[in-house]
Amino acid sequence: MTPHQPGFSGGTLDRADHLRGNEEALLALRQHTHARLLVLNGFDPVLTTDGALQWIPMAEAGAHVHLIFLGIADDVPHFVALSQSNLDAPSFRSPATAAALAVLGAQDLAIYGTARSLMDWHSRHRFCGKCGGPARAHRGGWGRLCTQCGSEHFPRVDPVVIMLAQHQGKALLGRQASWPTGRYSALAGFLEPGETMEEAVARELFEEAGVRATAVRYITSQPWPFPAQLMLACIAEVQSDTLAIATAEIEDAIWVGKEEAKAALSGDATARFQAPPAFAVAHSLLRYWAES
Amino acid sequence: MTPHQPGFSGGTLDRADHLRGNEEALLALRQHTHARLLVLNGFDPVLTTDGALQWIPMAEAGAHVHLIFLGIADDVPHFVALSQSNLDAPSFRSPATAAALAVLGAQDLAIYGTARSLMDWHSRHRFCGKCGGPARAHRGGWGRLCTQCGSEHFPRVDPVVIMLAQHQGKALLGRQASWPTGRYSALAGFLEPGETMEEAVARELFEEAGVRATAVRYITSQPWPFPAQLMLACIAEVQSDTLAIATAEIEDAIWVGKEEAKAALSGDATARFQAPPAFAVAHSLLRYWAES
Repeated sequence: MTPHQPGFSGGTLDRADHLRGNEEALLALRQHTHARLLVLNGFDPVLTTDGALQWIPMAEAGAHVHLIFLGIADDVPHFVALSQSNLDAPSFRSPATAAALAVLGAQDLAIYGTARSLMDWHSRHRFCGKCGGPARAHRGGWGRLCTQCGSEHFPRVDPVVIMLAQHQGKALLGRQASWPTGRYSALAGFLEPGETMEEAVARELFEEAGVRATAVRYITSQPWPFPAQLMLACIAEVQSDTLAIATAEIEDAIWVGKEEAKAALSGDATARFQAPPAFAVAHSLLRYWAES
Repeated sequence: MTPHQPGFSGGTLDRADHLRGNEEALLALRQHTHARLLVLNGFDPVLTTDGALQWIPMAEAGAHVHLIFLGIADDVPHFVALSQSNLDAPSFRSPATAAALAVLGAQDLAIYGTARSLMDWHSRHRFCGKCGGPARAHRGGWGRLCTQCGSEHFPRVDPVVIMLAQHQGKALLGRQASWPTGRYSALAGFLEPGETMEEAVARELFEEAGVRATAVRYITSQPWPFPAQLMLACIAEVQSDTLAIATAEIEDAIWVGKEEAKAALSGDATARFQAPPAFAVAHSLLRYWAES
């Protein structure tokens, strides 16, 4: 059984990485008759009446705007602008973005996710970490170059482990106090320098819930664009179902059965808990576990 | 079959993350009678005559040195110093480091790798990316705080996919021009924003070797401390063995059989190629493939 395709993945734009370092090729792409630019309001997507991402012809883009080259589909180059007003906008996940995520199709989610992660990275890396000098976008928006010391910087992606502990046919879910009432999801945490994926899973499960992993199995992965995580979804066998919850991290944790998980995933209002949204890899992971 | 434990993994220091934000607890750890400090020469490890990492009592550490809290083993707190002379040292992989890697045991490799990744991150993030202000180490060396805008920054880990393409019982290895004569290894590349692990594997295989992946299977992972990668090792089935090598990335690629791989992994001087060193996950991956 293969897991359900996670949200924000499955994008089919050809990123054409080899063109990023070629200023002439980038200019030709930008001037291409069919080149188009993603319409955003700050970091929020702007949807068409059909619920799709909105694009405008590149010819309508303002002059001198820094651009990120997203890729090519059907001979059409796709860009997003690094305008000051976009970059200065608040980058939290706004209600407008949340509403759009529930509507956008898989391809649009993948494109928006990539664009958003890159924009957010540019907005948080205006200066060089090495020398403090101002850095500018280069390589079609897939890098920044320090104008003072010449250091090159590349977009950051933060690996995060997200996992279900499993014991005697039940899976462990937790909730944070800030989540919607009744919502439970997989535990998760940032992987640290010096750890394997499996070690990070074991550490996080012990830190957050006091359970000891004996075996960790990778299931699927997802790019998560708030701001730029690589979600590595795993299932871990644990020695015991006795919990010691770190209340600084999660406010509650419960063991759920497969039928309870299926009811929650189907949106059943009488389910024991509310499942994570369909575009979250926790949803794909829980579905994989419940159906396998 | 489970893969051979990759180099730099398997560390058993308790990182005690919950103490990092607690200045009082950190001070007590530092003043602990048995607290010890890793001896380094710049970024290079300094070995004992037994080929182990060298430590000195914390009491012998200079005053006012910034410290990274590495973790606790057998009630002994372990630290590494963020001294200016360490941080200003060249951070390439020196001959002294290369020699040490061939000698250090698994636990020492794991500790050194973690220490080195963190030191390198501090040295490259002296200033705040958001505002350009000076940042200082905090949270026991597991973060930096901007002294100008107050932004908090966390250590960076870059996910990299490393993979064997597999076709009709043979695996694809490539070599870079800068490598030792005869050395071949798995292809690899940085995962980008907006990609799953599997998508990054497929993209890199197509970009570097012109082969199309039809299925990607995760095998194992490794923290790689030059400077701070998470290596995600995979095996990918590909449609055909016809290659189109991107010579800007690799100078050659070959299909090898399992017996050829075993000969190279055993260090046989008459083997068709020279295998990657034992501490590289490419070695673990190739061994897993050859023996399965």
